[in-house]
Amino acid sequence: MTHLEKLAAIRNLMKKDGVDAYIIPSADPHISEYLPNFYKSIPFVTGFKGSVSTVVITQDFAGLWADSRYFVQAEEQLKGSGFELVKLKAQGVAEYIDWLDETLPEGSKIAFDEKTVSVLLGLQLEKQLAFKKISFENQDYVGQIWNDRPALPAEPAFLLADEVVGQSVPSKLATIRASLKKQRVAYHLVSSLDDMAWIFNLRGQDVGYNPVVLSFALIAEDKATIYVDKNKLTAADLATLANQGVTIAAYDDLATDLQQLPANNNILIDPKRNCYFMYKQVAAGVQKVIETNPSTYLKAIKNEVEVANTRTAMIKDGAAMTKFFKWVKENVGKIKITELSAAEVLKNFRAEQEGFVGESFNTIAGYKAHGALPHYAATTESDVVVEADGLFLVDSGGQYLYGTTDITRVIPMGNNTDEESTDYTLVLKAMIEGCKTRFPKGTCGYQIDAITRRPMWDYALNYGHGTGHGVGYYLNVHEGPHVFNASATPIAIELGTITSIEPGIYRNGKHGVRIENLVLTVKDEANEFNEFYAFESLTLAPIDTTLVKKELLETSHINWLNQYHQEVYEKVSPLLNEDEKAFLKDMTKAI
Amino acid sequence: MTHLEKLAAIRNLMKKDGVDAYIIPSADPHISEYLPNFYKSIPFVTGFKGSVSTVVITQDFAGLWADSRYFVQAEEQLKGSGFELVKLKAQGVAEYIDWLDETLPEGSKIAFDEKTVSVLLGLQLEKQLAFKKISFENQDYVGQIWNDRPALPAEPAFLLADEVVGQSVPSKLATIRASLKKQRVAYHLVSSLDDMAWIFNLRGQDVGYNPVVLSFALIAEDKATIYVDKNKLTAADLATLANQGVTIAAYDDLATDLQQLPANNNILIDPKRNCYFMYKQVAAGVQKVIETNPSTYLKAIKNEVEVANTRTAMIKDGAAMTKFFKWVKENVGKIKITELSAAEVLKNFRAEQEGFVGESFNTIAGYKAHGALPHYAATTESDVVVEADGLFLVDSGGQYLYGTTDITRVIPMGNNTDEESTDYTLVLKAMIEGCKTRFPKGTCGYQIDAITRRPMWDYALNYGHGTGHGVGYYLNVHEGPHVFNASATPIAIELGTITSIEPGIYRNGKHGVRIENLVLTVKDEANEFNEFYAFESLTLAPIDTTLVKKELLETSHINWLNQYHQEVYEKVSPLLNEDEKAFLKDMTKAI
Repeated sequence: MTHLEKLAAIRNLMKKDGVDAYIIPSADPHISEYLPNFYKSIPFVTGFKGSVSTVVITQDFAGLWADSRYFVQAEEQLKGSGFELVKLKAQGVAEYIDWLDETLPEGSKIAFDEKTVSVLLGLQLEKQLAFKKISFENQDYVGQIWNDRPALPAEPAFLLADEVVGQSVPSKLATIRASLKKQRVAYHLVSSLDDMAWIFNLRGQDVGYNPVVLSFALIAEDKATIYVDKNKLTAADLATLANQGVTIAAYDDLATDLQQLPANNNILIDPKRNCYFMYKQVAAGVQKVIETNPSTYLKAIKNEVEVANTRTAMIKDGAAMTKFFKWVKENVGKIKITELSAAEVLKNFRAEQEGFVGESFNTIAGYKAHGALPHYAATTESDVVVEADGLFLVDSGGQYLYGTTDITRVIPMGNNTDEESTDYTLVLKAMIEGCKTRFPKGTCGYQIDAITRRPMWDYALNYGHGTGHGVGYYLNVHEGPHVFNASATPIAIELGTITSIEPGIYRNGKHGVRIENLVLTVKDEANEFNEFYAFESLTLAPIDTTLVKKELLETSHINWLNQYHQEVYEKVSPLLNEDEKAFLKDMTKAI
Repeated sequence: MTHLEKLAAIRNLMKKDGVDAYIIPSADPHISEYLPNFYKSIPFVTGFKGSVSTVVITQDFAGLWADSRYFVQAEEQLKGSGFELVKLKAQGVAEYIDWLDETLPEGSKIAFDEKTVSVLLGLQLEKQLAFKKISFENQDYVGQIWNDRPALPAEPAFLLADEVVGQSVPSKLATIRASLKKQRVAYHLVSSLDDMAWIFNLRGQDVGYNPVVLSFALIAEDKATIYVDKNKLTAADLATLANQGVTIAAYDDLATDLQQLPANNNILIDPKRNCYFMYKQVAAGVQKVIETNPSTYLKAIKNEVEVANTRTAMIKDGAAMTKFFKWVKENVGKIKITELSAAEVLKNFRAEQEGFVGESFNTIAGYKAHGALPHYAATTESDVVVEADGLFLVDSGGQYLYGTTDITRVIPMGNNTDEESTDYTLVLKAMIEGCKTRFPKGTCGYQIDAITRRPMWDYALNYGHGTGHGVGYYLNVHEGPHVFNASATPIAIELGTITSIEPGIYRNGKHGVRIENLVLTVKDEANEFNEFYAFESLTLAPIDTTLVKKELLETSHINWLNQYHQEVYEKVSPLLNEDEKAFLKDMTKAI
């Protein structure tokens, strides 16, 4: 079936049901960042392979709404598909709802698979289109035309020992129940897979990069049920869960259980992290309390065990990075290095480290102009040879059994221009500005974001992405609730949270610079004015200083950098051989 | 009647009605910052004269909830009143609702005067106490026991000419109606007095400092009605309004008109700027659309006429400030200067300027330890003599027929300590940091707040108030919707907005430093990265440099200060005599 034929088939189904518009979001019932193949509907229908977009089909128009990261790719991949790219003005905004509002006549009917729509989106659609008396229908037309649709993943899952995670499942359930009690809530539905992983100390490999297991949970004061394919777990792990007071039910049983909840109760549902379908299954007499998952807050604050283990992971990751830098420098111009081959070599250096599980996301290895695409991922078609010239941006990370890493470094390959040096220095200055900030308790991510950007604003420079994201513990490399970006997200930066600081400069068609460290929020001075916090740089890998223009930095930045490099050498060099040590010594020498 | 007798009288009325708790907020039906005497219920009942607090009375307890600004004053003034101070943990949070929640049994009855409760607060009370099945009753017990309650103000009001405000009433109504149409709203209730003043180019003197007129408006597509005491306006102004398509109705007719709105309609009501009583008067068939007043956004963006006139006001205000500094320096130790007498002298210097109407708020003239109280206002009891020693903080402003000013300066009186010099320099550094910031379009106040504070955070210093507030045009000295503080208020800083930048350091029992300029948002560079904005310092008055420690500043701060002082001298000196010019020349010399 061609994409055109698929589009025609969907339009036929719509006509039959009197449906005027059909929406296909890129989502699954867990509102995941990485989808199981079963839910990769947009690539199947349109041929577009980008990870975030929304398709809307009417009889007259078929559009794919995507943000600027995907403009080039979408134009290319949608050719001849019958689908047109609609360029989003703002990332993450459901602008197609305005389009539906303007386009559809009063009383129209819209369909979508409710399992692929978040509660938030479902309610927004209902609210915004209420004026036009538009009705909604739950339809999976993609499923109806997808003959060889992949099965849901059935990969093995496993429990992590309490000693590795620092808190037992009963203890975690107790803190969640205390939160529910305070909010006067009887039930709590968990659909988000990282929350599932954290609450039940559960890991797996059902999707790429995120070590999670397709599952749901229903938590009440006296009961906690995991809805999961039992075959994924060993008998021993099932016994452990049973001992911890956790019941196991079939993955597909959740809907029925929600329908049968006893009346005169209420249930906490996180609107961003549950699907509209499950939301609508909740029995009529049960009030829905729309709040953030308690575990989202709890998971973000790493306990002492998690912090200690993450520090170990960072040292090993720094050793892998050092070996990689050495390999690039020594081999460029001698053997053929491409973006893809370099990423493979880096992965292999990480794999040499004990406890390495896999990459924490698809490595962004962008040479020259490719570095200017913040979310570039090399493909066999786009892959280019890396030479002794220009800048090579590498954003990568590892999943270890004892932590998750995420680091960006830019390798000056040679013959660098003055603009490259200036950009490199200003990005470094901004990153250091963020890392060295002392801030009062209660400070939110948007404040750190502004402070990090200011050195760039001085030069009328800026970047289109956020400054940083929360990072999990052997879990998702992107996790909330805190975030360092310009949005008004009123989440205070708590002690024990891990966040990235990754400013950048992107010059279209030329080069990109981004430098990223992960930082841990730690205590600083307390006095009559405030209790102050600061950041400890967890990432321990050298930052190339050959392009640094010292005159653009203040003394405080230079001091930070020299001290950081001293720490990197002290902690990472014991894992290296003599040659590598000498290489690291040189890379970390004071400027 | 003593305060104890008033409390007993209220408790009797409560008992009679079966009311378990009675709430008295400090508010009026317009949710104003400054209350007409008629609504000064808390001073009448408790004796506490601070401007913001909430009283809650039960049969067992009578409490006054106030924030840290008022702790000392409240302890003092509540003595023997029967009321206890309850210290708020966070400013502006209705913490007494939690107390009611914890204290009252299920099914209790709470009463308050709905005209003194904002829509937001009313809905919050209902929502938070719903779990306990608490009911609410509209009761003005204060009115029942207040025999000589002052009448509502009946001061004359007047219209400003289009040439002075730069936009006619029909043009303003057209922009509001366009906004209502876009939001698909038929009616719009306006209660906030600064919105009333802006929409109808109307000014008056019904309350202190804010040049406003007690009034409401109901705006529809084909009609606009002002509810006001007609006697306040001249026949000519009434005729002008009639010509502009504006209807006048009696102040008290609004409730009835809201009850009689035609069904199957909707009405836009700003929850923060309307009272709960009027909200509840809206006819049953009319849907309430809870959104910010369109005029709040429009009013904040000053047009060219307003900007030009404000610049004139700032030059005159700067001349008055210069004369004041000279007077203080030359007379200290020679004549008796007190906080109150200094404020009076400053007011007189302002009054010499053409078009001066009055002060824009109660001058904060705080000598030594009084300067450490950010909201200190000298009274005859607290007033102290200002001597040739320590720091003297003066925060003041004027209302002119062509603009509103607000400025804080700290006068080093002599014998200053090293700590005073350091604090002074760091506050100046923070203020300059804010003023000189270049930022991309779309930046919100919380980002400017963080950037302004950072130089203080470096030294583990901070201040408990916001960095800045919007300022009106011959209107309220505090106006929204934008604000420079740490709260997650997602309001972008628009071109043409006026805001204060006023960081501070407060050392309890010692001294306070705050330095404040008003800034206008203007265009800066535009390039491939962003459209950048910057601030033009509107305030034009010298900043004493005798305490400045140059080594704590960066070159960019020193350059900013010297350039600013050059501009101050150029613009303000033409309004001064030769002696004053020489004084200003010296104060503004480069460091």
